Amino acid sequence: MKITFEELDRFLREQFPQGAAYGTLRKLGDGWAEMSLDVDDGHLRPGGTVSGPVMMGLADVTLYAALLSRIGLVPLAVTTNLNINFLRKPKAHTPIWARATMLKVGRTMGVGEVFVYSEGGDEPVAHSTMTYSIPPKKHEN
Amino acid sequence: MKITFEELDRFLREQFPQGAAYGTLRKLGDGWAEMSLDVDDGHLRPGGTVSGPVMMGLADVTLYAALLSRIGLVPLAVTTNLNINFLRKPKAHTPIWARATMLKVGRTMGVGEVFVYSEGGDEPVAHSTMTYSIPPKKHEN
Amino acid sequence: MKITFEELDRFLREQFPQGAAYGTLRKLGDGWAEMSLDVDDGHLRPGGTVSGPVMMGLADVTLYAALLSRIGLVPLAVTTNLNINFLRKPKAHTPIWARATMLKVGRTMGVGEVFVYSEGGDEPVAHSTMTYSIPPKKHEN
Amino acid sequence: MKITFEELDRFLREQFPQGAAYGTLRKLGDGWAEMSLDVDDGHLRPGGTVSGPVMMGLADVTLYAALLSRIGLVPLAVTTNLNINFLRKPKAHTPIWARATMLKVGRTMGVGEVFVYSEGGDEPVAHSTMTYSIPPKKHEN
Repeated sequence: MKITFEELDRFLREQFPQGAAYGTLRKLGDGWAEMSLDVDDGHLRPGGTVSGPVMMGLADVTLYAALLSRIGLVPLAVTTNLNINFLRKPKAHTPIWARATMLKVGRTMGVGEVFVYSEGGDEPVAHSTMTYSIPPKKHEN
Repeated sequence: MKITFEELDRFLREQFPQGAAYGTLRKLGDGWAEMSLDVDDGHLRPGGTVSGPVMMGLADVTLYAALLSRIGLVPLAVTTNLNINFLRKPKAHTPIWARATMLKVGRTMGVGEVFVYSEGGDEPVAHSTMTYSIPPKKHEN
Repeated sequence: MKITFEELDRFLREQFPQGAAYGTLRKLGDGWAEMSLDVDDGHLRPGGTVSGPVMMGLADVTLYAALLSRIGLVPLAVTTNLNINFLRKPKAHTPIWARATMLKVGRTMGVGEVFVYSEGGDEPVAHSTMTYSIPPKKHEN
Repeated sequence: MKITFEELDRFLREQFPQGAAYGTLRKLGDGWAEMSLDVDDGHLRPGGTVSGPVMMGLADVTLYAALLSRIGLVPLAVTTNLNINFLRKPKAHTPIWARATMLKVGRTMGVGEVFVYSEGGDEPVAHSTMTYSIPPKKHEN
């Protein structure tokens, strides 16, 4: 693992100065990460369930965390493709969490998958795959 | 067209009581819609560009508008699949807008595509395809 | 499990009368399946590796098998969405195999994911997610 | 346009020595291409319609042609992501054709979309988006 939990946690808070709007780092391993998100009223659809864009945002940042566990604190890695299937209605007024796993980390891109769950639920509410573009390292060639 | 611009505009404001957080309806036709989104600080990534989840949110609601132009004001249509390619960096501190077009509206699902642009830009910053599940009509069958 | 290995094996051979062109059933469980495919010259790209459409074909039929383990021998289930990431170059002149797992089987649609491997390789050469549309049962309702 | 119709036509025939199994070039412009595919028995599903993998194969090679119109005859460009929505049942025993358009051609990747039609049909039977990885040029940098 190229970074520690504490290093990544600090980095994410700096990158996303809006606070915990995109989630909180919970666990980190070599090529995987878990993050959770408390839901507030701005995240909800009629009926009290979490909206799609909120789940996509959490999936996106959780895969970013999993990628950084492999490549270190690279601020300019950007998502180039995201595919998500919404599988089940999340529980109303319940936090969500995500587990992301890298499927491949190459020199110029990383691909991974993310499962999103309602806290306390057994079955995923969404599943996403993503590609991140990794910027070329400076002073390299 | 099953609804007027005014009917849909009112409906979207009621569905998304957080205000214009997901965008403002700009144009509406039979099977297509355009919406725009003013960017504020909560939408930005470091560097002042719009974040991915914000573009996904606008793409999602714009295709919803395009779908409703065909099926009327159905509140329970939900996204089941979303695929998005991020093509170019949006302009910093510039509103974005999206044009959504239905590719198919069936009895139980609708599929469409969305192009997202920075205001004043010629080339799309993102392109998305989505599937919406259409709930069965009551009192039918 | 709604069907046995033998029932599904026979069914697939009848559905795909071109022979084993789309793969051979290897294992079957409740909500998952494994199939393999011998490569012949018609499947190859320059360099001797399996072409993308061949991997997509195997992924497609393997998820079909996994779906049928849950819903029984339904011939009219059709793929409505397929997303695939090509992760690594398959080994030259080597069979490929796939493992498909359902993520959700609802009344009208099933969603699952598939990992594709070169025979003898540890890391996936491709990863796919798919949605199948399940036709309404006759005499129901 | 970096290549002529005749140059690309010859190149595709050499790249795919199985003959016209993946389609025939029909039109070529700057950033777009059209290809068609005669259907034979090996392409058919029960009912006489073209199978999904056959449509994916045609979509894939047509976008490859569109990409090469911009970057020249690069044999090692490979698909890294493909997303396809199957929209309508193709006509039975009828050739299919595809039109591909690049949405972006960057230094290391190209993204485009493809519409697939049954010959003589007005509405697309499938819609696909794809990412191609472009290999670094030799003698560059």
